[in-house]
Amino acid sequence: MQQAQTRFIINTHDKALYEFTDEVADWLAGTGIETGLLTLFCRHTSASLLINENAAPAVQRDMLRWLDKVVPEGLHYEHDSEGPDDMPAHIRAMLTGTSLSVPVADGRMALGTWQGLYLAEHRRMPHRREVVAHLVGE
Amino acid sequence: MQQAQTRFIINTHDKALYEFTDEVADWLAGTGIETGLLTLFCRHTSASLLINENAAPAVQRDMLRWLDKVVPEGLHYEHDSEGPDDMPAHIRAMLTGTSLSVPVADGRMALGTWQGLYLAEHRRMPHRREVVAHLVGE
Amino acid sequence: MQQAQTRFIINTHDKALYEFTDEVADWLAGTGIETGLLTLFCRHTSASLLINENAAPAVQRDMLRWLDKVVPEGLHYEHDSEGPDDMPAHIRAMLTGTSLSVPVADGRMALGTWQGLYLAEHRRMPHRREVVAHLVGE
Repeated sequence: MQQAQTRFIINTHDKALYEFTDEVADWLAGTGIETGLLTLFCRHTSASLLINENAAPAVQRDMLRWLDKVVPEGLHYEHDSEGPDDMPAHIRAMLTGTSLSVPVADGRMALGTWQGLYLAEHRRMPHRREVVAHLVGE
Repeated sequence: MQQAQTRFIINTHDKALYEFTDEVADWLAGTGIETGLLTLFCRHTSASLLINENAAPAVQRDMLRWLDKVVPEGLHYEHDSEGPDDMPAHIRAMLTGTSLSVPVADGRMALGTWQGLYLAEHRRMPHRREVVAHLVGE
Repeated sequence: MQQAQTRFIINTHDKALYEFTDEVADWLAGTGIETGLLTLFCRHTSASLLINENAAPAVQRDMLRWLDKVVPEGLHYEHDSEGPDDMPAHIRAMLTGTSLSVPVADGRMALGTWQGLYLAEHRRMPHRREVVAHLVGE
């Protein structure tokens, strides 16, 4: 049994979903691990990780619209010192999650046909986001 | 340290929570692993996995009613080509999650008294859902 | 490769976020594991685990206010026999999650600068909550 770790940097600009499935798949292939467990962890509280449909871009826009409606931006939060998009970003990150666990089989992530890995950026300003990847297996 | 993997198939019909705790427990017992980490992963973006109260069926109905209210079906989404229940299914899957991690102790999942494992189906039509299970331990 | 497991007890009183980052860090340091994967699992369906900003206490209050608004307490749920805060507690636990996965590097959790580990209590009455920790690594 072995382990591998790395960090992915995702540079964001505005609220959006940023797919990084291919970057993870390339790194995974390089480790030589055939069977195992991959964990991805977002080191931020105003961005998050999620698995989503990667075929229709409209799906991603509808997701962001729903988050905008149910967790609205504004200065009606007690914590408003970092701008109208900061507190909703924390709530949206809580709802969508900080880590992802993906089994590895035959040297590949066991994703379904339409599943992609996304970093969800919930802030408007550009950010440099860091995702830690951990792999255990053989 | 060893690993084991399997896939569970859950045939769904209509939106509901489908418990599969016993199937997972049976498989786990057969692996002979006493201490470890179990991961369950849903290979779909319109179904999800969650841990929920398994004593009162009304709890499950209230959960589904809440999701119906807060993420309503309809054709007001940009992505509406797959029917009024498709885009809300993606949003509900995002909110409830794609993977579950459960520690294993004394050869059993470390679940609390009232916790059960559920696949949440968010589409109305019947689907064949696949859940990958990964276990590492000894 | 080794494993370690323990349980953390968190005594709660009223709905709030209870940080337990330091307790986990202390236990982790004692295991001697330098590189690995830490998993935390909440054995309850009316409390949950989340990673959140640990600098501004107002962030936590805004989170709880948002949950109170979007998943309101009341007796309008079918499952109302355990009081007006029970069914919303189950829904809030579903939204925020039962388990957390955190990579370990250089003997420490790979948390970002502002990230803390929290148990979210969603019931009003005092509870004794149990969180199982599992660590695999070397």
